Formats: sequence, C-alpha cells, structure tokens
Amino acid sequence: MSVVARRVWPRRALFYTPGSDMRKIEKLRKLSGAGVPDFVALDLEDGVALSAKAQARENIAKTYEGLRSDMPNIQFGIRVNSVSSGLLTEDLRILRELKSAPSCLLLPKVDSPEEVREFVETYSLALGRCRWKLKAPVPLVSFIETAQGLLNMKDSFQAILDSQYIKHEATVFGSDDFVASIGAHRSQNGEELMYARQKLVAHAKAFNIQAIDMVWIDFKNLQGLEENSRQGANLGFTGKQVIHPANIETVQRVFSPSEEKIQWATELLEQFAEHEKSGTGAFVFRGKMIDMPLVKQAENIIVSSSSS
Amino acid sequence: MSVVARRVWPRRALFYTPGSDMRKIEKLRKLSGAGVPDFVALDLEDGVALSAKAQARENIAKTYEGLRSDMPNIQFGIRVNSVSSGLLTEDLRILRELKSAPSCLLLPKVDSPEEVREFVETYSLALGRCRWKLKAPVPLVSFIETAQGLLNMKDSFQAILDSQYIKHEATVFGSDDFVASIGAHRSQNGEELMYARQKLVAHAKAFNIQAIDMVWIDFKNLQGLEENSRQGANLGFTGKQVIHPANIETVQRVFSPSEEKIQWATELLEQFAEHEKSGTGAFVFRGKMIDMPLVKQAENIIVSSSSS
Amino acid sequence: MSVVARRVWPRRALFYTPGSDMRKIEKLRKLSGAGVPDFVALDLEDGVALSAKAQARENIAKTYEGLRSDMPNIQFGIRVNSVSSGLLTEDLRILRELKSAPSCLLLPKVDSPEEVREFVETYSLALGRCRWKLKAPVPLVSFIETAQGLLNMKDSFQAILDSQYIKHEATVFGSDDFVASIGAHRSQNGEELMYARQKLVAHAKAFNIQAIDMVWIDFKNLQGLEENSRQGANLGFTGKQVIHPANIETVQRVFSPSEEKIQWATELLEQFAEHEKSGTGAFVFRGKMIDMPLVKQAENIIVSSSSS
Repeated sequence: MSVVARRVWPRRALFYTPGSDMRKIEKLRKLSGAGVPDFVALDLEDGVALSAKAQARENIAKTYEGLRSDMPNIQFGIRVNSVSSGLLTEDLRILRELKSAPSCLLLPKVDSPEEVREFVETYSLALGRCRWKLKAPVPLVSFIETAQGLLNMKDSFQAILDSQYIKHEATVFGSDDFVASIGAHRSQNGEELMYARQKLVAHAKAFNIQAIDMVWIDFKNLQGLEENSRQGANLGFTGKQVIHPANIETVQRVFSPSEEKIQWATELLEQFAEHEKSGTGAFVFRGKMIDMPLVKQAENIIVSSSSS
Repeated sequence: MSVVARRVWPRRALFYTPGSDMRKIEKLRKLSGAGVPDFVALDLEDGVALSAKAQARENIAKTYEGLRSDMPNIQFGIRVNSVSSGLLTEDLRILRELKSAPSCLLLPKVDSPEEVREFVETYSLALGRCRWKLKAPVPLVSFIETAQGLLNMKDSFQAILDSQYIKHEATVFGSDDFVASIGAHRSQNGEELMYARQKLVAHAKAFNIQAIDMVWIDFKNLQGLEENSRQGANLGFTGKQVIHPANIETVQRVFSPSEEKIQWATELLEQFAEHEKSGTGAFVFRGKMIDMPLVKQAENIIVSSSSS
Repeated sequence: MSVVARRVWPRRALFYTPGSDMRKIEKLRKLSGAGVPDFVALDLEDGVALSAKAQARENIAKTYEGLRSDMPNIQFGIRVNSVSSGLLTEDLRILRELKSAPSCLLLPKVDSPEEVREFVETYSLALGRCRWKLKAPVPLVSFIETAQGLLNMKDSFQAILDSQYIKHEATVFGSDDFVASIGAHRSQNGEELMYARQKLVAHAKAFNIQAIDMVWIDFKNLQGLEENSRQGANLGFTGKQVIHPANIETVQRVFSPSEEKIQWATELLEQFAEHEKSGTGAFVFRGKMIDMPLVKQAENIIVSSSSS
C-alpha cells in the first residue's frame, strides 16, 4: 500500500464481534480470502448483555493487541457504550492497558454536540496520563441511530471536528435503533429509511468522512443483500454493517470501486503528485479543473481497491 | 384506562368538524362503535368561510363543554386561525367563556419561532385573567404546512418547548397547503411528499410528540385510504387526518398497535414499575437495556390500544 | 406582457452556451418558435476549458449587449466561475465593459454563507466605480451542487438575502457535480437524488425564489426527458437545465402552466388589483382567504404562460 493507503482505511464491511464471546473473537482468525472484513468492531454495546459487560471488557483488553498484530489486514475498532448508558467510563478504562492507541473507537447513539463534548471529557479523564493519549487524536466512528441524532447531526459532527482528542473518520447509520426511535415499521421497499440514509450521506460527505450503511438483517438472502448493498453504494455509502461472516464477501465486492474508477484515480493521483512538485496554477486533469475533494475521492478509491 | 392513559391521548384519527355548521356538530353524537374518532377538531380555520367565522366562534363557545362531557371518548380540540391571519385574537377570546381549559388547541401554519412566540403572547393577552389559564399549559397541536414551516420546524418546536403556557403534544402534516406552498403537483406514488413527511416524523419523534399524517382526499376509495394509512404508519406516523366519517374506522384500525406490540408494552411497563420501586442499576427487559424513549413508546402503545 | 411579467422572468429552460465558442453563441440567433429558451447562460465555468477562459471572457464582453437587444425574449445570464476557483475577479471584470447591469449572474458551487459574502465583496471590488453598480441589486441565480452546499443552503440563502448588491431570483440543482460530491452513482429510478431535489425545492420556495431542476444527460431520449421534466414539475421545480437545443421545446412545454391554472391566476390577480384599491379586510377569492405567497404564485403562472 502507498502512503495514501495508510492515511485512509477502507471500511467496506463493518463486522461485529461481541467482546463477551471469546470463541467468536478467536474465530476471526479463521476468516480468509474474500471473507476477511476490512473492519471489525469488538463490541461492548448492544451485542453484549449487561451481565457480561465486565467479561467483555476483560476479553478485549487481553486480546486487542494480539489481534491487531496477527491480522494487519483488518482494522480493529472497539465499540464502547453510549454516553447516556452510564457505562462509558468503565469501558474506556480498558484503553489504559493498551501500549498504544486503539486503531479506532466506535461511539453509538451520538445524539447531540453536548454528548460529544461529554464523550471527549470522559475519554480524557478515563485515560488519565496514559502515555499515548496526546500523541494523536484517536480515530472515531460515530453512530447516528435516533431521531435526535439525525436532527443534531450537523452540530454533533462539528463538535467532533472541534475536538483535539478525536478524529472523525466515519459515521454509521444504525437502522434498527433508528426505526425503533421513530416508531417506524420496515416495509418491502425500505422507503421509510430513505430520508435518514440520504441525509446522513450528505452530512458525511460535507464533513469529508465515510458513510457506512444499514445492516441487512435477513442474512441468508444473499440476493437481497446484494441489492441492498448496491442501493447503498448508489446513494453514496462506501461500506455496510455485517452481522454474519457469510455476508462479508458480497458486501466488500459491491463496495469495491470499478476498474474504470481505479484507473481514473490512479492517473489523477499520479498527475496531482507531479503538479504539486511544479506547484503553479490550477490542477487540470482530463480537461477538468480538479479540487481537493476530488483528490480525496481518488485516494479513497485507491485505498478501497488496494485491499480487495 | 390506567394512569398512563390519562397522560397521553391517542390521536389515530383527527376528524374535522366546521365550527360554523351546527348540524355537523350535532351529528358527532351519532357516531358509534368503531366510527368514533379519538380526536375531533372543531374548526375555525379553513373549513369556515370568512363570513361565517363569527358564527363558528359562537357555536363552539356554546357547545364545547357539553360535547366534551357527553362524549368522553373523544378529545375535542379547537382549531384557531393562524397567527398571520389577523383573526387569532377574536378566536381565542371564546376561551374565556369556558369554565376550564380546552382539551387542546390546534394552531395552523406554524412557520417560525417568532410566530410561536406571537401566538403565546396573543393567547396570554386574549385570556387575560381567565381563571384556569395558569393552572397548566394548554395542550397544543401544531400544523406544518408551508415550505417555511418545514424549514423552521426545529426552531419552532423549540420555541413551543420553551413556553410555559403551551404543551406540545402532536404535529400535523398539512399536505394540501404544503403542496400549494411549494408549487408541487400530486402524483400517483406521492413521492413529492416523502421528504416533508419523513422530516416531520423525525422532528416529531426527536421532540417526543405525535406525528399526524396527511389527509386522504379521495375518501370514497377505501383501498387507497388503507394503503396510504399503512404507508404513514410505516413511516412512523401514529395518526391521520380524516375528512369523512366513513374513513374513521379504517384509519383507526390501521393505526392501532398489534397484539404482539401490546403484549410487549404491557410487560415492559409492568417490569419497569417493579424496577422503579427497587431503583437500582440499569433497567433490562427481555435481555436489552431499556431507556426512557422506549418506556414512552410502550406507554403510547398502551394508550392507543386502550381505546380501540 | 403586464407589469407583473416584467418583475418575474420565467426560466423554464436554462440553456448553456460556452462563452469560448463564438459559433455556438451566434447559433443562438437561429433558434425560433418553441425552440427559443427563456434563459441562456453564457458560460465561463465548466463548459469552458481553463486555457479558453480568457477568450470566453472576451467573447462575452464583446457580444453580450448585442445578444440582449437582438433577442428580447431570452434572458441572458453570465455564469462566472465559483468563489473557490480563483478565477472570479477576472470573470467579473468584464462587467465593467457593459453599459448597464447584466440581466443576471449565475454563481456555481455556493457552499457556505462565507462564500456568498466573499462573492459580494469580490463583485463590489471588481466593479469599482462602475456606473450602474449601485442602481439596483444584480439578479443572481445560485447553484447548489455539493454536499456542503446542500448542508449550508439555508444560511447561504440568508446571506444572499442580506446583501444589498445581489437579488436572489433562482437556484439550480447541479445534479452531476452533486453526485460526484457525495460519491453516488446514478440509478434507473434516480432515488439517490430525491432528498437533495426535494430539500432544494423546499428551501427555494421558503425564500420565494425559483427552483431549476437537474439536467437530463441522455438528450436523445425525449421520452425520458419528458418523464424527468414532469417529475421535476411535480416536485415543485419551475424549470430545468438543458444541454441540447432539441430539448428546449419539451422542457418548456412541460413547465408551462395548464389553461386551468392560467385562468385561476388571471382571475385572482384581477380581483386582487380590485381589492387593493378598496383596501379593506382580508382578500377572499373563490371562497378562500388568499395570502401573499398565493398572489406571487399567480404572478409566476402568468409570467410563465405569457412567453409560451
């Protein structure tokens, strides 16, 4: 992978593994080939019963660094409980036991800028004088999964952007919690989610972060999975939540850029590097003036393709 | 009905009766069985010609308390004219003649927080030292029915929340006025309304109020009514406007919760009451941590079901 | 045309002509009958290669006043480059050479209120003491074509409204740039654009300006063009971008008001003029109270019809 690739990690499939289940954690090592997900969330939240939270924290603290070094093609994030859960301080304490910063934290139910600021404060206090805390902001993946979260998204994202301790890299649409939050019911064509999904994509792109789409619950229906993934890709999502390992391959295939796109991005980045050396005037590629968002889009394409 | 039921009134069908038409007002007493609507708006606004406003005010002032005591299964609201109409002060004066607060006021064309504040001031001045005015905030049902109203919805709802005189309980999507406001035309699939309907539901739920859906104009087409009602319920609406008595039964049936939902809500509320007595730790139900929005959702379900 | 017509110009078809191509500019004179567009954008932006910008500026400066006086049924706007392009000052300088204000400027990629204010400042500086600058604000047509633009639309429109130098008359949905901006892909049913299109219409109408819809790329498919135009009209757009002269007639036909609408508007405006003379009480038309937005809607209908 190039310099570019190290800066932006592709998250085509976000695969959940409950932190309380050591058997499932160990099974991650068995995934191979196209079944290896870009991104794994070691879960302390909804996938873990309240009585098993302590065990899950212990498991993750114990295995995290081994998993990361053994499986360099996977980014391992830790999904903590929400600010309103009352469990966050305990969750974050396990980070003190790590020798370096986690690759990424996943924060569910981001409902308001106040909550973001409370998260940052809790994070800072829980870590104390932990050595790596101030070296670089920790990558953060936020979840929008309530009506309030959707309403306050712009302000919440701005609050994340304003913090020196965290770096916003992606946001996830928590479809099931959102449906419960607005009292909706799932229909065949999924129209009840279109407003939220499209609003989320627009906000993600405006803040220059990745947008990760809803989970496909009916995981045995691979045809439905493929269609739902493709719809998400059409809407501008660049990844999708996955709850069954058998779905990883399909999702990552659909969210991989086409050959044509890769070609376009490769050439654009090459010529951009040339242009930066000479450093004069506007950057024109294939007859069009190219601005920074397009350069970043090209970087994302190369990153997604380099791991497929 | 339980304690809960008295706090939240179901509004599955919002049925309009022009205040100027005593014959129609008296006909409300003839409705029976499944044809009795949860919620009746005695109208001073669009259903009443300008020349008949004075008569409508007189009719409502004279009949309101009798209707309410004779039909306890119906909530009677009074729909006043909008802030911008210039008719509001006159409309609100009739409230002075009531012995107690009306069950609810319906305020059309809520376009901005400034208008909300003007409504509150007009309300306060019109009522003067009316005895019941300060006892409790009057329940308010707002209408979003213009492009401006949709744009300013968050700020308008916040202004309502900030007032001590009014209590926001529901918001209504005024589809016909909205269509005229944006210069749209009604199509077969109704896609021209999806953005507004979904934005309104998300805002209603974030402010913890009911969302009442568009009217179905073609009232003789019961199949269309049922489909349009079900679509609204899928989107998260919990009620619908009705212009013909023959449509009340269908609407209330579709917006009633399922047996399964009622079972879930009943058990959840029982266990929550237990939990509140003991008062320790997080509340877990069927293996999931339950937060207050879910408790309120359960209350709403019980309320809707208790009157069906 | 009536007094009304001179105040609001219909923009059913927005037709692009690259400023760099004198042959295409001259070909505008050949358009006749139903093929004459309401609105032509002489382009300095995306339709002109970077190397041809200077030539395009020269062409427009040289031909603008002749085109305008020779073709009074067309409104000629000048599309400058965006604030972030670095080309704006040069573009605006050509206005100094005009004897009177241009009929309208088109500003692409309006991303934030800060950009609007920068535009106004650049405009004011570039024009210097140009004679016509302060006579009246210059009509402006904005473009929303990025995720950021969509997010900040309300604030950007407010910034335009707050400026004394510009007068916001219409906004254009730049579909292709928007799709690139959010990394979406065009699907058959176009659902990936519905959120943006509907949000834009609602904002346009709330700010009382025209909304001009996406371009139909597949210009040889007239059936598709007609359907896409009609969908836009249903959503509340009152015009559409056109890239091929053969598409002007279809677009202008679809965006023309119906006979029934014209009848309604004509009568309403007549009675409104009567009412203004007598000047007492609310204005009632066909039994309904009429407010100013409806009067303006009627004006727009008359304008659109008077040129068809």
